[in-house]
Amino acid sequence: MIESISLIEAYKQTQYQIAGNGKRNIQVLKDAFEKIEGEQESDIYGNGEVIEAFQVKMATYLGKESAVFFPSGTMAQQIALRIWCDEKEVKKVAYHPLSHLEIHEEDGLKELHHIDTVLLGEETGLIGLEDVLNLDQEIACLLLELPQREIGGQLPDYKMIVEISEYCKANGIRLHLDGARLFEILPYYQKSAAEVCGLFDSVYISFYKGLSGLAGAILAGNKEFTQQSKVWKRRHGGDLISLYPYIISANYYFDKRISKMDQYYESAKELAALFNSCPFIQTKPVVPVSNMFHVHINRTKDQVEAVLKEIYNKTSVGLTSYLRETNQSSYSFEVSVGDQYSSIPKDKLHDAFQLLQVNLQ
Amino acid sequence: MIESISLIEAYKQTQYQIAGNGKRNIQVLKDAFEKIEGEQESDIYGNGEVIEAFQVKMATYLGKESAVFFPSGTMAQQIALRIWCDEKEVKKVAYHPLSHLEIHEEDGLKELHHIDTVLLGEETGLIGLEDVLNLDQEIACLLLELPQREIGGQLPDYKMIVEISEYCKANGIRLHLDGARLFEILPYYQKSAAEVCGLFDSVYISFYKGLSGLAGAILAGNKEFTQQSKVWKRRHGGDLISLYPYIISANYYFDKRISKMDQYYESAKELAALFNSCPFIQTKPVVPVSNMFHVHINRTKDQVEAVLKEIYNKTSVGLTSYLRETNQSSYSFEVSVGDQYSSIPKDKLHDAFQLLQVNLQ
Repeated sequence: MIESISLIEAYKQTQYQIAGNGKRNIQVLKDAFEKIEGEQESDIYGNGEVIEAFQVKMATYLGKESAVFFPSGTMAQQIALRIWCDEKEVKKVAYHPLSHLEIHEEDGLKELHHIDTVLLGEETGLIGLEDVLNLDQEIACLLLELPQREIGGQLPDYKMIVEISEYCKANGIRLHLDGARLFEILPYYQKSAAEVCGLFDSVYISFYKGLSGLAGAILAGNKEFTQQSKVWKRRHGGDLISLYPYIISANYYFDKRISKMDQYYESAKELAALFNSCPFIQTKPVVPVSNMFHVHINRTKDQVEAVLKEIYNKTSVGLTSYLRETNQSSYSFEVSVGDQYSSIPKDKLHDAFQLLQVNLQ
Repeated sequence: MIESISLIEAYKQTQYQIAGNGKRNIQVLKDAFEKIEGEQESDIYGNGEVIEAFQVKMATYLGKESAVFFPSGTMAQQIALRIWCDEKEVKKVAYHPLSHLEIHEEDGLKELHHIDTVLLGEETGLIGLEDVLNLDQEIACLLLELPQREIGGQLPDYKMIVEISEYCKANGIRLHLDGARLFEILPYYQKSAAEVCGLFDSVYISFYKGLSGLAGAILAGNKEFTQQSKVWKRRHGGDLISLYPYIISANYYFDKRISKMDQYYESAKELAALFNSCPFIQTKPVVPVSNMFHVHINRTKDQVEAVLKEIYNKTSVGLTSYLRETNQSSYSFEVSVGDQYSSIPKDKLHDAFQLLQVNLQ
């Protein structure tokens, strides 16, 4: 009976889930708009109180001169790199081999902007100063993603970022931050967003990762940079007559969750330790440095799915909705801790990991 | 006292307005979501019931094989032209000199897609078959905008579109419809949307013109075309994790207003006749062929503003919030009729035009 349903169906039937902030349903929008007055005016093509006030708020939070709201990070980041390439008249940038731009954007940067890329560092590791020093090609911009999502959300030492930043500044290389999960790393670094962003020329942040808003992004930098980014936003088709559904929800979930990043980080470490107490399982990183990590299980898919479905059935605690085959013919999934973790009864959580420890053989 | 406030401020204080469907405020979203269940799931990166069902509904309405929801028409149309250019391996398209792509998109088509353009026809007129026959360059696609918004929403005879369509088909030129205001022209042509769209290879429609939704667009065509458009949507940064704020409101305002296009069209003709009864005023077109027209006033800005503000003050009927200087050193504004026109008390409307007739000297 349990075997007859898929892992995702079994997961959807669980009452508790270890990751995330809840379902991505229409209520997410309804909650954000509940206390908003209907009389409040829409933004109009990038102008108006609702967008301008939020842009100022985010620029201040990030310690940047100016900020622009975008419908997506894909759009914001391509545009940031394009501006820096145009400035230097060098159509080449460098980033990690598993950067979002390289693997999730259908080569938009190349197809739309004709920008060449240098893949810096190893797929399984982080970009280090040495990689930057060893660059044998001129680049306009280096993009750093903090944390590096596709390898479990790893982070370099803060000192390493400072050194890379200083080197880039001294050598005419713009440094851009893919800060899709910037909020989530601040507890580990014990830095403010403005301190981290101070090391970068331009910064992108997202509102639907740790904050679990609807969608949307902010791109921040100096005024000349953001002014140019608005022209490119229009060209990309992102300068919508009304972006307020995303802006108002971004603002709502920012206010609601920004102070919870410490809690998510501590929970992630606790949860990773529970996974690491199980045979054939190791998290990456072993000790998380943000709210996220990857769980690697060195067993066949059938074995893992059977155990997971039994856990979901017996405890109603969902651990993952999917399994991804990794290079080492083992399986992995991602965990990003949010509000849901703290609402799981401790005995249920204990039972779930007890079953994982005993049954995974 | 009247003179001390701006035209837009005076307009905002009026109780009635001749154009539009109402204020662009947050209530527009709230109304659309009022009866939507919070439990309904979000679309996820272009998948899910909420987006797929609406795409099928619009494909059916337009008589096309397939349809894709986009955040904006700017994005949808550039992508349509890019696909047709790639297909033919000719990076050139033709459109009207006052096409949205030429004057409102910061040259996105050229800057992002490196597509050259041929400006077809005169600024003040429509593209005719002769213009197409006289093309001395190879093009991949011809874009027709129906109605031609920047010249007051003019339309060619239906027969002319049929002839252009047949010529394009016979000569390997793809025909794309900028149908931002497609719904609004159907009463004049006495055709279904599917009949009009049958003359075109690809079609874009908008949800915030006559329908006054929040934002968003549909691009429709055959399956191969729409499949490619999804890849480009991702590249442009338009494949948002959640587009439902626009989709649900588009669906709501489509259902609410699609059957009112006849009423808007009849009202536009009535309203244009009222304007044309005034000295120094002529509408373009003289007899509207959709819900829209432009009002041209051959008087100085000070003269016109003083009369308008007096009308707004005495009758509380707003005619326009702005005046645009035209080539002939006269002034113009656009009128797109929606729900608001029918709610103006007839005596108020009569008084407003009485004042316009008498005081404009």
